[in-house]
Amino acid sequence: MAPPNIKLSSGHEMPQVGFGLWKVDNATCADTVYNAIKVGYRLFDGACDYGNEKEAGEGVARAIKEGIVKREDLFLVSKLWNSFHDGDKVEPIVKKQLADWGIDYFDLFIVHFPVALKYVDPATAYPPGWTSTSGKVELSNATIQETWTAMEGLVNKGLAKSIGMSNFQGSLILDLLRYAKIRPATLQIEHHPYLVQPTLLQLAEAEGIAVTAYSSFGPQSFVELGWEKAADTPVLFEHPAVTKLAEKYGKTPAQVLLRWSTQRGLAVIPKSNNEKRLQQNLEVTGFDMEKAELESISALDRHLRFNNPTDYLGTLHIFA
Amino acid sequence: MAPPNIKLSSGHEMPQVGFGLWKVDNATCADTVYNAIKVGYRLFDGACDYGNEKEAGEGVARAIKEGIVKREDLFLVSKLWNSFHDGDKVEPIVKKQLADWGIDYFDLFIVHFPVALKYVDPATAYPPGWTSTSGKVELSNATIQETWTAMEGLVNKGLAKSIGMSNFQGSLILDLLRYAKIRPATLQIEHHPYLVQPTLLQLAEAEGIAVTAYSSFGPQSFVELGWEKAADTPVLFEHPAVTKLAEKYGKTPAQVLLRWSTQRGLAVIPKSNNEKRLQQNLEVTGFDMEKAELESISALDRHLRFNNPTDYLGTLHIFA
Repeated sequence: MAPPNIKLSSGHEMPQVGFGLWKVDNATCADTVYNAIKVGYRLFDGACDYGNEKEAGEGVARAIKEGIVKREDLFLVSKLWNSFHDGDKVEPIVKKQLADWGIDYFDLFIVHFPVALKYVDPATAYPPGWTSTSGKVELSNATIQETWTAMEGLVNKGLAKSIGMSNFQGSLILDLLRYAKIRPATLQIEHHPYLVQPTLLQLAEAEGIAVTAYSSFGPQSFVELGWEKAADTPVLFEHPAVTKLAEKYGKTPAQVLLRWSTQRGLAVIPKSNNEKRLQQNLEVTGFDMEKAELESISALDRHLRFNNPTDYLGTLHIFA
Repeated sequence: MAPPNIKLSSGHEMPQVGFGLWKVDNATCADTVYNAIKVGYRLFDGACDYGNEKEAGEGVARAIKEGIVKREDLFLVSKLWNSFHDGDKVEPIVKKQLADWGIDYFDLFIVHFPVALKYVDPATAYPPGWTSTSGKVELSNATIQETWTAMEGLVNKGLAKSIGMSNFQGSLILDLLRYAKIRPATLQIEHHPYLVQPTLLQLAEAEGIAVTAYSSFGPQSFVELGWEKAADTPVLFEHPAVTKLAEKYGKTPAQVLLRWSTQRGLAVIPKSNNEKRLQQNLEVTGFDMEKAELESISALDRHLRFNNPTDYLGTLHIFA
């Protein structure tokens, strides 16, 4: 069963369940994408920073070549890395990213973080990560408005069908909406029962912005990075509030977590290397929990954010 | 004993303890300001929105006339209301506010909230509050950059010695710092043991921005407005973590709360109608608590914000 679509303000439709490419190994990425397409995935959420766009594109190309899907059946997402926020750097890097994927447009292109870093020439280091070639975190002077104006240029030139934001806060979004000629179609945020963010969802809904959750399983995504904060937090898959509902509905804890998000109206982008789980994650909109049950999961909120530059860089306090 | 000064990035010095004019009655405001000056207060924190700038100015004028202080001994602060964010509206309203105070410059002028509302002619309603003459909350299209550029004009014309922000979040501050020609000297935020905001303080410190705490006593300031959220929150004056330290140091709970803030490096702006408490609040830098004791107060953090338009307007989700 294909997941439902979400209608975006851009007029395009986005699958509510997709496959997230963060931390997908280069060695397995092409096969993973190819297999996910076979299982039924149509949305792939990539990024310059994930360093696997070429391989993701290979998986897509194979599926198209074999006639499993056409390009227009897919919804391919990528993101603008912080080092390319300067107005004149946006289009060139998107063209490079499109070339890596082997496609000529993104369905959705997203500003990855609301922070402009000093330009790094892709010939020197790619993807550049958080630091300049000096090894330091160095800011550029590009404003979010300068970057957003360049993002709008991508739509006008047909390089992206829709544009969006990730990791933006309320007041910055409200400011962006003052100058945006093309409104952001989506907002991608860290979202799980330990970081529920009801007001941000309220803002997005009021402004007609679709929200995509990342790290839907909470600490799970970060434990493997060796992050102490994640290791010290109770695993959501074993949390009684989650396992109780999994038992009741005959679903896995992962499915309960994804259904909690999708019933709140969010899109989700889990990843898995296991075919059975790939299938389970995709079928996550096929059952409904009760309102009180959804609220019992939301009640786990700890305002606990894992993907925070404050923690891993000691600077760029974008979530302060 | 006069409180210490904080050196601002603008080169000016700001007293670390001042008097906040929010909710000071028009009937008593002139006397209150006059008496506070006699007690030793030099900083007064006003705002268009408080609706008492004329009366505050009368208190100042009386103290100057009687030779208790000179204008240059005082540090007078006011704020730009949301309805005056349009670039061409900033200077006219500041001139009106200065005329109300009976002075020719502010020591510090602050953007009250990072949200631009539709202009309301002061001849129609003043202060206008959150709604337009239609009775609705209506946004203007002014960006924060447009407003900040106009704020910089105030410094260039000598109408404000320093300029600052209030109720701004991390990512919006970082964006503002990209385009600011004159950097914000201060950031005023809600700050009490239930809303500790360590990352925002870290950001401000890294960027050389002085922070002023408002509502230092937490729910106390909001209970009298009849706000349920405040009424449902344990009073900080009676919290064992606070009273224990008050007993140990022979201070009042209010003094412990203010000292917790000032030892964290913040300026504070309590108000009181009682001469003894006025004096006590001013003397709040005269004792030092231990690091572990400060941390025991910080541990009360609940991420609990009282002054949030989301709660009292149902919109303008600037803290999302």
